[in-house]
Amino acid sequence: MSVTAPLGFRAAGVAAGIKSGGARDLALVVNDGPSRAAAGVFTANRVKAAPVLWSQQVLAGGRLRAVVLNSGGANACTGPEGFQDTHATAEKVAAALEDSAGEIAVCSTGLIGERLPMDELLSGVGTAAGQLSRDGGLAAADAIRTTDTVSKISFKRGTGYMVGGMAKGAGMLAPALATMLCVITTDADLTSEELDAALRRATSVTFDRLDTDGCMSTNDTVLLLASGAAGVKPDLAEFEQRVIEVCADLARQLLVDAEGASKAIAIEVVGAASEDDAVKVGRSVARSNLLKCAIHGEDPNWGRVLAAVGTTDAVFEPDRLNVAINGIWICRGGAVGDDRSKVDMRPRDVTITIDLSAGPHTATVHTTDLTADYVHENSAYSS
Amino acid sequence: MSVTAPLGFRAAGVAAGIKSGGARDLALVVNDGPSRAAAGVFTANRVKAAPVLWSQQVLAGGRLRAVVLNSGGANACTGPEGFQDTHATAEKVAAALEDSAGEIAVCSTGLIGERLPMDELLSGVGTAAGQLSRDGGLAAADAIRTTDTVSKISFKRGTGYMVGGMAKGAGMLAPALATMLCVITTDADLTSEELDAALRRATSVTFDRLDTDGCMSTNDTVLLLASGAAGVKPDLAEFEQRVIEVCADLARQLLVDAEGASKAIAIEVVGAASEDDAVKVGRSVARSNLLKCAIHGEDPNWGRVLAAVGTTDAVFEPDRLNVAINGIWICRGGAVGDDRSKVDMRPRDVTITIDLSAGPHTATVHTTDLTADYVHENSAYSS
Repeated sequence: MSVTAPLGFRAAGVAAGIKSGGARDLALVVNDGPSRAAAGVFTANRVKAAPVLWSQQVLAGGRLRAVVLNSGGANACTGPEGFQDTHATAEKVAAALEDSAGEIAVCSTGLIGERLPMDELLSGVGTAAGQLSRDGGLAAADAIRTTDTVSKISFKRGTGYMVGGMAKGAGMLAPALATMLCVITTDADLTSEELDAALRRATSVTFDRLDTDGCMSTNDTVLLLASGAAGVKPDLAEFEQRVIEVCADLARQLLVDAEGASKAIAIEVVGAASEDDAVKVGRSVARSNLLKCAIHGEDPNWGRVLAAVGTTDAVFEPDRLNVAINGIWICRGGAVGDDRSKVDMRPRDVTITIDLSAGPHTATVHTTDLTADYVHENSAYSS
Repeated sequence: MSVTAPLGFRAAGVAAGIKSGGARDLALVVNDGPSRAAAGVFTANRVKAAPVLWSQQVLAGGRLRAVVLNSGGANACTGPEGFQDTHATAEKVAAALEDSAGEIAVCSTGLIGERLPMDELLSGVGTAAGQLSRDGGLAAADAIRTTDTVSKISFKRGTGYMVGGMAKGAGMLAPALATMLCVITTDADLTSEELDAALRRATSVTFDRLDTDGCMSTNDTVLLLASGAAGVKPDLAEFEQRVIEVCADLARQLLVDAEGASKAIAIEVVGAASEDDAVKVGRSVARSNLLKCAIHGEDPNWGRVLAAVGTTDAVFEPDRLNVAINGIWICRGGAVGDDRSKVDMRPRDVTITIDLSAGPHTATVHTTDLTADYVHENSAYSS
C-alpha cells in the first residue's frame, strides 16, 4: 500500500528512460488534501544536491502538494545548471497539476556529478501525472530503487487514521551513493509544526541509528505529508509512535537489503551515562571496519569492540566494560569473560551488547558486516 | 642497521615460542649510554593494553635502559593479571641487564584479550639478552612482525650523529590488531624534553597522517631513545628533521605493506584555512569506505570525495571545491571539471588533491584502497 494507504494521496511510478534498460525510474506522489501540511529532514552533509537545496526551500513554507522522485541520477555537484534542472522538474509537475511549483518537493538518487537527461525526465513527469491513482504506491516505491533489490514499503493504523511510507536505500541512512529517500504520508490532520516534531523524533531513533558504512549522502531526504482526509486530529503521542513504527519498519528493510551484507548487526549499548553517550559508542562500534570483518568471519572478536569503544569520549572505565555477543558475556570487567566458543555466530542476526556500567541510558545502533561483496559492488558501480 | 645504526645500542631478535611455527617473536633493544634520555608517544585509545600503561609510567621518568617487544599477543584487555605479566617481563629484562625495571619499556602486539605464554616469553628474554649485539637491529625488526610481510627499518645521518628506527604495523597508525610499534634510536646527546618535542612533532606529521582503516589500536607505541654515545649535542631543528625523515620513511613502508591493499593513496589537501582543517578533511576522505572501494576499482569517483569533504566542519564553500585525481582536475567549482577519462588510475600510487579555496594551509594524509583481500585477512585473523 505504501504512500497511498492513507486517504487523500495518489501516486504513480513510470519508466522515463533516465535509467538505461527500461526499469521504472520516476515516481510522483500527490497530496489531494484538504490539508497540505508537511515537514522534512535532510542530509547533514554540507555538500547538498540541487534537489535537497530546492526541497529545503519549499519546506520552509510547511506545505507540499506533491513530491517527484527520480532514480538514475543524484543531480549532486552539478552546479547552477543542476539547480535549474530541479526547478524545471518542479515547474513541470506544477503545470501537470495546475498548481504552484513552490509546493513541489524534488528528490533524486543515483550517481553524483552528472546532469540528468532532462528531456526524458520531463516527459516522464507528464506520463506519471497521467497515471496517478489511489493504488499507485507500489509502482512509486519500485521506481525509486537504485541498487535496492526490493521495494521498501510500510503502513500502520492509528485511531481513525493511517500512516504509510516508502523508502529506498541499499545501505545506511547516508551512504554517498545509495542515498536514502523516504516519503511518509498520513490522512490525519496535523499542522506542519506537529509533523516536524514527530518526524524529527522518529528519524532520530530509527534512520539516524542505521549506519552501514559511515558514509553520508548528498541527497538524503525524509518527507512527511498530511492530507487531513480522514478528518481526525490525532493524539500526538500516538501519532509519533505510528511514525516511529513506520520509520523503524522501513529502516529494518534498508538494513536487510544493505549492499553486499551477510549479517544484520544490532549494537545495543546499555548502562550509559546518557542517551548521547550510548549512540556515540554504538556508532563508533558500527564504524569499525575490523569488527565488521570479524563478524563477517563469524568471529566473536570482543577485543575489536573494546578498541572501538575506547576511541569515544563517553563516560566509562575500561575495567568495568562488559560485552556480550548473541547473549554470551565473553568480556567481563574489560577482560576475558565467558567461553567464546559458546557464541553461536551462524544466524544472520547478530546482537552485540555493550554494558558501559556508567548509568541507566541505552540506545541501539544497527549496522551490517563488511564483505568482499560490498567491496565489489562499490568498486564497480560507476566504472 | 635499524635501531643499532647509532652508537651505544645493542639489539637481538629471537624465537621465544610465543607464536606457533617457530618464527622470531621477541626483540630486545638496549641503550648502553652514556645517556638514557628517552621519550614516547602512545595510543589515544582509552582502552590501553597493559604494556602501554606500564611504559607510560616508565617514561614519566624520561629515561630508558631498554625496550622489550613481543609479537604473538597484545596483552590487551587481560585485566590485572595482564599487567602483572608486563611487570614480570620488565623485571626479567632488568635482572638480565643487572638494572632497574623502572627504566624498561614493554611493547606487545598481536591478538587482544588473551594472556601471553609467560614461560616462553620469560625464557625468550633470557635468550635475547644473551644474543644482544651491535648488529642485532635486523633480527629485532624481524621479531616484531605480525601480519607484516617485510621488516621495516630506516636510518638517517645527522651532523656527527645517526638516527635509526624500526617499526611494525601492517596498516595504519592505529588498527585494532595490526598495532603500530616503533623504536627510534640516536647517538646524539639530548634531554628527554628535547626528545619529547622532536618525537611529538615528527609523529604528528607522519604516523598521525597515516589512516588505512580508521581503527585505533590499544597498543600503539613510538619510542625515541638517545645514547649520547656520539658525544654530539645536535642542532635541534636538524635533529627534528632527521627524526621526521625516519618516521616518514617507516610510515611509507607501513602504508605499502598495509593489509590487503592494492593502492597507496595520498590525499593532499590544499587551500585550507588552517593545518587542522586540512588534516580533518584528509582524514575524512581517507575514512570513506565508498571512496576506497572506488579507487580499488580504478574509478576516479570525485563525487565520493566531495561527499566525504561535506561531512567535516572545515572552512569551505561547496561551490568552490576543486578536486584533482592524479593531476587531472575532474571537479572544478564543486561540479564537473576536466574529462574523467583522462585520469590514469593504473599506477599503484594515487594522488587525490583537494583544493578548499579557503586559505594557504596544506596537509597530506595517506591511506589505502579497500579490497576483498582486506576483508579476507581481517575476517580470518582469529578464527
